[in-house]
Amino acid sequence: MDKRTVGCLGGGQLGRMMVYAAHRLGVRMCVLDPLGEHSPAGQVSELSVKGSFQDAEKIRELASKCDILTLEVEHVNAQVLEELHQKGVPVQPLPFVVKLIQDKYDQKVHLQKHSIPLPDFEKVDSEQQLHSIGEKFGFPMMLKSRFGAYDGRGNAVVANAAAIPTAWKKLGGHDGKKLYVEKWAPFKMELAVMVARGVDETMNVTMRTYPVVHTVQRDSVCFTCLTPPVGVTQKQQELAQKVATDAIKSFDDARGIFGVEMFLLEDGQVLLNEIAPRPHNTGHYTMEACGVDQFEQHLRAVLGLPLGDCNLRVGGAMMVNILGQGETPEMVAKTMAPLRRALRVPDAGIHWYGKEGCVKGRKMGHITVTGFTPASALEEIRPVLKAVDGEGNDSTSIEVPHKSSPSVGIIMGSDSDLPTMKDAAVVLDDFGIPYEISVVSAHRTPEYMYEYATTAEARGINVIIAGAGGAAHLPGMVAALTPLPVVGVPVKSSALSGNDSLLSIVQMPKGIPVATVAIGNAANAGLLAVRILGAANPGMRQKMARFMSSESTMVETKRRKLESEGWQAYLAGSK
Amino acid sequence: MDKRTVGCLGGGQLGRMMVYAAHRLGVRMCVLDPLGEHSPAGQVSELSVKGSFQDAEKIRELASKCDILTLEVEHVNAQVLEELHQKGVPVQPLPFVVKLIQDKYDQKVHLQKHSIPLPDFEKVDSEQQLHSIGEKFGFPMMLKSRFGAYDGRGNAVVANAAAIPTAWKKLGGHDGKKLYVEKWAPFKMELAVMVARGVDETMNVTMRTYPVVHTVQRDSVCFTCLTPPVGVTQKQQELAQKVATDAIKSFDDARGIFGVEMFLLEDGQVLLNEIAPRPHNTGHYTMEACGVDQFEQHLRAVLGLPLGDCNLRVGGAMMVNILGQGETPEMVAKTMAPLRRALRVPDAGIHWYGKEGCVKGRKMGHITVTGFTPASALEEIRPVLKAVDGEGNDSTSIEVPHKSSPSVGIIMGSDSDLPTMKDAAVVLDDFGIPYEISVVSAHRTPEYMYEYATTAEARGINVIIAGAGGAAHLPGMVAALTPLPVVGVPVKSSALSGNDSLLSIVQMPKGIPVATVAIGNAANAGLLAVRILGAANPGMRQKMARFMSSESTMVETKRRKLESEGWQAYLAGSK
Repeated sequence: MDKRTVGCLGGGQLGRMMVYAAHRLGVRMCVLDPLGEHSPAGQVSELSVKGSFQDAEKIRELASKCDILTLEVEHVNAQVLEELHQKGVPVQPLPFVVKLIQDKYDQKVHLQKHSIPLPDFEKVDSEQQLHSIGEKFGFPMMLKSRFGAYDGRGNAVVANAAAIPTAWKKLGGHDGKKLYVEKWAPFKMELAVMVARGVDETMNVTMRTYPVVHTVQRDSVCFTCLTPPVGVTQKQQELAQKVATDAIKSFDDARGIFGVEMFLLEDGQVLLNEIAPRPHNTGHYTMEACGVDQFEQHLRAVLGLPLGDCNLRVGGAMMVNILGQGETPEMVAKTMAPLRRALRVPDAGIHWYGKEGCVKGRKMGHITVTGFTPASALEEIRPVLKAVDGEGNDSTSIEVPHKSSPSVGIIMGSDSDLPTMKDAAVVLDDFGIPYEISVVSAHRTPEYMYEYATTAEARGINVIIAGAGGAAHLPGMVAALTPLPVVGVPVKSSALSGNDSLLSIVQMPKGIPVATVAIGNAANAGLLAVRILGAANPGMRQKMARFMSSESTMVETKRRKLESEGWQAYLAGSK
Repeated sequence: MDKRTVGCLGGGQLGRMMVYAAHRLGVRMCVLDPLGEHSPAGQVSELSVKGSFQDAEKIRELASKCDILTLEVEHVNAQVLEELHQKGVPVQPLPFVVKLIQDKYDQKVHLQKHSIPLPDFEKVDSEQQLHSIGEKFGFPMMLKSRFGAYDGRGNAVVANAAAIPTAWKKLGGHDGKKLYVEKWAPFKMELAVMVARGVDETMNVTMRTYPVVHTVQRDSVCFTCLTPPVGVTQKQQELAQKVATDAIKSFDDARGIFGVEMFLLEDGQVLLNEIAPRPHNTGHYTMEACGVDQFEQHLRAVLGLPLGDCNLRVGGAMMVNILGQGETPEMVAKTMAPLRRALRVPDAGIHWYGKEGCVKGRKMGHITVTGFTPASALEEIRPVLKAVDGEGNDSTSIEVPHKSSPSVGIIMGSDSDLPTMKDAAVVLDDFGIPYEISVVSAHRTPEYMYEYATTAEARGINVIIAGAGGAAHLPGMVAALTPLPVVGVPVKSSALSGNDSLLSIVQMPKGIPVATVAIGNAANAGLLAVRILGAANPGMRQKMARFMSSESTMVETKRRKLESEGWQAYLAGSK
């Protein structure tokens, strides 16, 4: 479709997945990598150059074969890219951005200038200076290398003043390595957002932002990612997307995709941690979960093609990285185990990177499981996580490194409604739908009701079932505070047999509907929740159809009995 | 993950997409194709052999490099595959199946033996015999080549007795080409189903069946595919899946994926048309729409790995093939136009096959658009179809070759309910949700009500809004006949002000819920339908949240006006 050849500095797994996207678009690629045609990307690209992406000559050779240069790793010779760019070779993202990002301290200074929220940071030139910064920032604090850091390498936590000498030495401060310090960010979770920056037909900037991901590190390497993140409110997610987008906006005229890692603090603040000017591990889930994946989006941005859709096409997705365990046959088998296990998981996307050997700690592949909700993705990926940690562990003991989330919330105004409302739970159990159940009183716990309703969507809830009796305000108030569908159960009251509950729930004003069921009929509320989940889920509809047909059969059995025995025997028998 | 090398006879686009799947699984591939490493699959596979897939020597050379052989085209030298298989080389699907399928007449005889429903067919050895068959089958009838036919080549419609000599000559009957005849199948639609046949860990057969696709041909070549097919009932879809699965069951011990093309007749019968023992054009949609795509599924089946999930992960998907228009620059540009247009379509998957040149009629690529419903996929792909047919055409005049389907059905017991029920339509228009609106009376048109409710799901409807007054049976009866969520609107009655309607709708027995809204409040029914669609659709929830916030703003404006003007002026102003 596009006759240009894209040259990529680096031929690892990010490059490999970029090549697949290039194939689909009909774009040719040439990769520069020390492993050349044997690198993960070189194995599948049309062309390759063998050499270091630091080597000026090799980069020039790559440029001579290509129409435009990009990269899948930022630790490249940015100087040569700048020279080539000056000579008119298109390079995206622009070399100045690559250079800026290579120096984490300069990156932070740039972002601070553009009012991006960051942890406090300061340049440090001596061990002694570190002590005075420690007094200012407090402990623990982070000592970081300005250059060449990735996957936790180049970072050191300084727990207290006594730990300063060790940290200083560990990062090579004594050898003149350039370092800087960051104030400790007391984060609740780490979030990440991919942002694409491209141009439209008239060369005006266009930007697209992917959903927010909750990332979990293990030994400082990305372990799992979950989207949408459970336990992060819609507003917090929008804030994270805004921080990420604002940061990338600051890179004038640069094009491509950017991975933005952030901290979500306990108080809801979002601070930017760092930026990668390329596809990123936290964006792998986009391959199964989004309209256009991060690799195709990067190429579109770099080539000036229209950017694609970033929205989720699924309810939730979780990714887990597969790291090499070592070169022995046992270690190779252990590395492969989660991939083999994933073959038996519905909706698991398996990605093997084709690397030679099985070096311990190296990223060998990844698995993404999508689901109707984040909760179902979490549940489905559990056996794969178990396989990551070895078969010795009991599956139930595997800690999924994200909060799980129920799909339906059952709430009631009082525990006295529970004997009625439990029927909804029984139905959901029968249909295998995860739910949470609680007492939320509109009149006695109005603040909690507000919190419950406004956070339900972010918790991954798809439908709320609310039961109440008498003046029965709960269902309607909750419906006023969430865009989710709310099913109302009028609980039978002693004074008016539930007439009061029914009218309080069903007669909502225009604008805020409550899906009301019969008085005391919480089973029907459960069944309605199943139908609502089935509106966009053929599998769930099939389950409902099977339930309806089993109900038919039950009635037909009774009919046949009555017809064959006669009404007298039937009544006598049912006594 | 799997150290075996898979050899594939044929290196076209099906092979290319099979190689991508092999990469993901960590399996190596070697393809045999006349274009060798320049073939679409050879460009991306680890190994390739240049040669014909009819050439015995070349097939043996391929076998020598591989652990197992498979194919992406059935017109191969099956004799050599049989010999290799005898000598212990694993070949899947088994050579006897490939041979059987190569001869369309033998294929039919085999399927008939296994009670698969087929159009009547008969072997024909002479032009004269064709006349007597014509008298028996009636006209039109289909004259078909037994061997080597594909994409409509090798088929001739015999319109009447006078057309026999031309058809006989066209297919080479006079040159001794082996032909057979099929009785004309008066089909309503052409359907297709992909079926995978593999083995479990104990080598027992396991089978998985993909959803049903509606295929539309243009000039005898697959043009578009839509899934789920609109206008095909759930029972008909299950029948098509059963016919396809039964057919593939008959191929003892063969493994792989099979494309099964069928006719759906006006009376609901399904007849098998033909089978391809490999990935198939009608299964391309599985790449974007299903848990595991047909290419990975084929490799899993062939290699004896666990089969993957076939269920749709989206509400609907439509695929369009991009055929070469010719070699001139204008023709190449015309070929590319739909791909370029697809870049601006959300949820469009673009697949370019990397073929040299742009031969007229050759399959150069395909585009799959997924959507929340088949209707939204149809709507989104419209501009791409327009680009296929050239920019000269008016977009509104492009005929989408499938029925479109509304997402919400609004029905009412009487046209006198329309002034109430129109409010639901207004809301759906505001939210951009396609709907149908009709009068369906439970008491006066019970048969039509039955038909409406039982076919709603297959028509692509996700939610039904039913309004009725007085004895108001419509919502409950419809809910009893569909697994879809039904929203009930009690229409205000003259005798009891809608109290009767409300109780008739809301007080449903256990088992069949109706989501009841306030008396006469059809706007809330529309909003509830939007919330239901949003239960699994974050984009729709965002729209609902925006609506709720605009309602807040409206009330706040009034509040500020009242507070600043005082109540007297406020009331005076609102007169």
